[in-house]
Amino acid sequence: MANAIRFLSMDAVQRANSGHPGMPMGMADVATVLFRQFLKYDSQRPDWPDRDRFVLSAGHGSMLLYSLLHLTGYKDMTLEDLKNFRQLGSRTAGHPEYGHAAGIETTTGPLGQGLGNAVGMAMAERLLASRFGADLVDHYTYCLVGDGCLMEGISHEAIALAGHLKLNKLIVLFDDNGISIDGPVTLTDTVDQPKRFEAAGWNTLSVDGHDPKAVAQAIEQAKGSDLPTMIACRTTIGFGAPTKAGSEKTHGAPLGDEEIAGAREKLGWPHEPFVIPADVLDAWRAAGARGAAEATAWDARLAARDPEQRKRFSDQMAGKLPEGWTAALEKFKEEVVANKPKAATRVSSQQVLDCIADALPGLVGGSADLTGSNNTRAKSQQPVTAEDFSGGYVHYGVREHGMAAAMNGLALHGGIIPYGGTFLVFTDYCRPSIRLSALMKQRVVYVMTHDSIGLGEDGPTHQPVEHLASLRAIPNLLVMRPCDAIETAECWQLALEQQDRPSVLALTRQGLPTLRVDSGENYCAHGAYILQTAEDGQRAVTLIASGSEVAIACEARAKLQEMGISAAVVSMPCWELFLEQPAHYRDEVLGPGTLHIALEAASGFGWNRWVGLEGSFVGMTGFGASAPADALYKEFRITADEVVRRVKAAL
Amino acid sequence: MANAIRFLSMDAVQRANSGHPGMPMGMADVATVLFRQFLKYDSQRPDWPDRDRFVLSAGHGSMLLYSLLHLTGYKDMTLEDLKNFRQLGSRTAGHPEYGHAAGIETTTGPLGQGLGNAVGMAMAERLLASRFGADLVDHYTYCLVGDGCLMEGISHEAIALAGHLKLNKLIVLFDDNGISIDGPVTLTDTVDQPKRFEAAGWNTLSVDGHDPKAVAQAIEQAKGSDLPTMIACRTTIGFGAPTKAGSEKTHGAPLGDEEIAGAREKLGWPHEPFVIPADVLDAWRAAGARGAAEATAWDARLAARDPEQRKRFSDQMAGKLPEGWTAALEKFKEEVVANKPKAATRVSSQQVLDCIADALPGLVGGSADLTGSNNTRAKSQQPVTAEDFSGGYVHYGVREHGMAAAMNGLALHGGIIPYGGTFLVFTDYCRPSIRLSALMKQRVVYVMTHDSIGLGEDGPTHQPVEHLASLRAIPNLLVMRPCDAIETAECWQLALEQQDRPSVLALTRQGLPTLRVDSGENYCAHGAYILQTAEDGQRAVTLIASGSEVAIACEARAKLQEMGISAAVVSMPCWELFLEQPAHYRDEVLGPGTLHIALEAASGFGWNRWVGLEGSFVGMTGFGASAPADALYKEFRITADEVVRRVKAAL
Repeated sequence: MANAIRFLSMDAVQRANSGHPGMPMGMADVATVLFRQFLKYDSQRPDWPDRDRFVLSAGHGSMLLYSLLHLTGYKDMTLEDLKNFRQLGSRTAGHPEYGHAAGIETTTGPLGQGLGNAVGMAMAERLLASRFGADLVDHYTYCLVGDGCLMEGISHEAIALAGHLKLNKLIVLFDDNGISIDGPVTLTDTVDQPKRFEAAGWNTLSVDGHDPKAVAQAIEQAKGSDLPTMIACRTTIGFGAPTKAGSEKTHGAPLGDEEIAGAREKLGWPHEPFVIPADVLDAWRAAGARGAAEATAWDARLAARDPEQRKRFSDQMAGKLPEGWTAALEKFKEEVVANKPKAATRVSSQQVLDCIADALPGLVGGSADLTGSNNTRAKSQQPVTAEDFSGGYVHYGVREHGMAAAMNGLALHGGIIPYGGTFLVFTDYCRPSIRLSALMKQRVVYVMTHDSIGLGEDGPTHQPVEHLASLRAIPNLLVMRPCDAIETAECWQLALEQQDRPSVLALTRQGLPTLRVDSGENYCAHGAYILQTAEDGQRAVTLIASGSEVAIACEARAKLQEMGISAAVVSMPCWELFLEQPAHYRDEVLGPGTLHIALEAASGFGWNRWVGLEGSFVGMTGFGASAPADALYKEFRITADEVVRRVKAAL
Repeated sequence: MANAIRFLSMDAVQRANSGHPGMPMGMADVATVLFRQFLKYDSQRPDWPDRDRFVLSAGHGSMLLYSLLHLTGYKDMTLEDLKNFRQLGSRTAGHPEYGHAAGIETTTGPLGQGLGNAVGMAMAERLLASRFGADLVDHYTYCLVGDGCLMEGISHEAIALAGHLKLNKLIVLFDDNGISIDGPVTLTDTVDQPKRFEAAGWNTLSVDGHDPKAVAQAIEQAKGSDLPTMIACRTTIGFGAPTKAGSEKTHGAPLGDEEIAGAREKLGWPHEPFVIPADVLDAWRAAGARGAAEATAWDARLAARDPEQRKRFSDQMAGKLPEGWTAALEKFKEEVVANKPKAATRVSSQQVLDCIADALPGLVGGSADLTGSNNTRAKSQQPVTAEDFSGGYVHYGVREHGMAAAMNGLALHGGIIPYGGTFLVFTDYCRPSIRLSALMKQRVVYVMTHDSIGLGEDGPTHQPVEHLASLRAIPNLLVMRPCDAIETAECWQLALEQQDRPSVLALTRQGLPTLRVDSGENYCAHGAYILQTAEDGQRAVTLIASGSEVAIACEARAKLQEMGISAAVVSMPCWELFLEQPAHYRDEVLGPGTLHIALEAASGFGWNRWVGLEGSFVGMTGFGASAPADALYKEFRITADEVVRRVKAAL
């Protein structure tokens, strides 16, 4: 049965003339044990919520997963799909792509990400089990990693978090083949992996990855542990290849016809490419149905719950927001309009969380050790601990990357809407995972505070400059920078309503005035809107700003008005949403033919999209500096006076 | 003496009403031992090349460093500077900024970066010692880290690399205070740090950080080890604060006048703020001169070398490129012009390296386990190993972030010009360090291959889309994307000639034709230039492209010409350099008034800067896909026909 994986992998890679045969050949035995004897799944019901999760963190070995899905009978994965490996439009992309086929639990390839996702999935299991009971949620998460995954820094964050939270239903299968792309791992790495996992609070085991009995015994032991377990599986990369086995030559290139013929001989597999003998296929298909009875029993348990509970579970797993979840939020907005507080948007964000945390049972927040600064913890949220997962707040530690990858896992698992905070500048630390949130279309909310030089004294290392532009450049990601408490509430609502994309909320450290005078419609939903019209309705100037600079734009508008120059202020919290508006609305907002001046305490990179080549940008041209915020705004001339100066120079 | 640090720190933070007093107060004893008894330095000669390096990786404790520099007599650090802590234009920024004052060896604050830099500095020491001998290069690198540094993923990459290379002259002082921002470290972390370092091949020691004798003994032991050493110093954060010591309350906020008064009483320090008693100051000043004699002896040893060696050492340490280093490069370019090869720019890049590796003795290359794909290893380069640092090539392992941080350390140390490779998409993994290269103005060359969908089958996880825009948004970073072998050579030369900024070379996986017909002048130095003029000299259309899309632009130009539409092709390998050109040159190249169409197999984010709102962009609008490169170019319509279509629609 393992050889079926090996030859499908070899042959598909050969046919595509591109791919990674070595890992599937090496880990075929381990995978066979897992999928035949342990993994709780039903290939005919890939969306069964309580299935075990299998994450192929070493995503280059995608043919291992595709072979398994085909062999075990997933309908989405035909022989034709395998033959189309790495071709345009196929389900079988070079690396597993979430959404391409059922059974692909997450997109992997960028190393270490899958491990971080698996930690999130194992967290989701614990969180949901504590909310709905073990009769509905009780599964394992298996994750296959390679040396590359374990060399990446994110692996440290992921395993430390998993060890700290004692995620004992997380089992990592380490493909300990001693080979990386440049050659033997000894060329680059001498880390004692088991010892390292033990230092992080893990149980570890070590087995011959080609001895199915030993592998089975190890998984059995792992399932009984009260700690997460790492099983180091000693394997031969490219197992079965007559001359290349055990060498980096099998890692990332087709083996060649001759070598594959030799493997056929060596492994006693006389079958043509893509031909699986009936008895082998039958055995695999039986394995694919091994969870069917359990799934049926699970259905019965769900059906036995009272209808309200059943609906709550199903809705939450489907990611539906409960009816009326915005009630407290609406009230909050009305109060803001009435009281016009001066508040940092990070503080407003916390108030929003206080309004919604109880209304959204799937909401699970956290911060990378900046809870008090990010204002990410709602008053009612209790910390999640190894002993108690009933809380809704995760202290992720100083692990921005691990947090983001775990949030992807939480979202992918279903049942949880994750959000997490750090400083906006440290989106750089978790950028690979943010990209994957966007690529996988996951609702993950990044609460990124201290969003400009306005953070002041911490200086240029902590002041984002290029980050808004860098994030806006990522496809399928909403970057939202609200200007006051009302917009903060609106942006939060939008972020939570997105079913198929992540959001970044860029929030200030410093206090901002309330600028919005009404709260009826969610103006942020349009991405940009006219916040203040020209007094006489005939604007000569359009000032476009986001976040903390909207107030400066309003101040400039007043000054211009005094000088007899009509100006409108456009608040533009979200470029991406604005780009989705019809052209006539965009024109209405932007006022073609007027002088455009944009303000943002950040790099102007990208702003020509809105101000053209004739307009002007007031913002940063280089890195920030360490000083009180007010001094910095003056120093970098992000002021109403500078706007007036630019207008006078242009008109 | 340690109390002098404590009160300078407390008082400066209080005066600034912003900052982090807890760490300096906790680590004052350890730092005092280090700077009085061990660190080899002369405060009057901060640029002595063979000084020990001290890196404050926990950069928020900047007042520890500023206090030490002032107390030991660095001229750049007056009492006035300390009083101006965190004020505009001061040397004493919120976090230590490289270049603000002598004695600040690197910019820290983003956690874990300093540790990565320290690894690079310790590597530089070994590399230079093997080139120039231990009589000229023989120093230690000390690095102070906190829990935050050690939670960050980059710490794993850094310590694994250091352990692998047996950097025994690297000594890490861990401020083991059990406190992080959210509260006790137990809230988020249970990693056994010593065990973890041991797993990575380190020697570890554990001491009471408030027992100077024990600390001294540990450092002594560490210096004798044949492995890098981590000394866990158990300390009390905010040591001396009467009610807040040992609590996260001392971490990131002023203690308040009352608490400071209590500390004065408790620690028996009756002096006014910023007043250091003469005896204490004398003792500190004596410590600051402790390396003076050694420095003089070192001078004598350098003077004893023959003049050629002496010059070579001094030039290399000063970062000067040897005369005539481009000779082989010029020859290579002439051959290219003569032979017009079709080659991937990553392959051309390797040929360039073959031309220059021997001519530049300070050049040290490497790759994050993609040597064969990045083509980063010149034929003559031997691998650097724990046993032998005479080579010029580092197998960094799958550690993009650790590699980039180490390269910053290599550059900061002096004597080394580092370059390193990975896939362009994985700039995301090392982005925080790339940002610091730019902020610190370091000559680091990032060789980033597989720079678009042109990499083909590996699919969207490996295909950069937003990365060029994201990198261009970083201030003080050259992003260069050459279109053929000539431009590759030119860009390499430019990257190496930058004394005060890093460069990213974005290189193709796929083969490209030679487009340049001459090699006399370095056209890339202008950032952009007219590669092909309109045949009749009267262009209606200007096609602007970079890298692999320049060939498509040339093809489109020919098609347009056939249709009677005159078009010029602008090759734009580097936006940043082009922006530095005089306006008349830019106009000459861009041809205002012509129809502008830009081509780049990447996000169009930012391109309005060149095509305005009337022009058009041919490129990516979302993520890529897995398929052969040709199929992807067609699928995403990055073709000459699409250019023609756009021109016809616009004209």
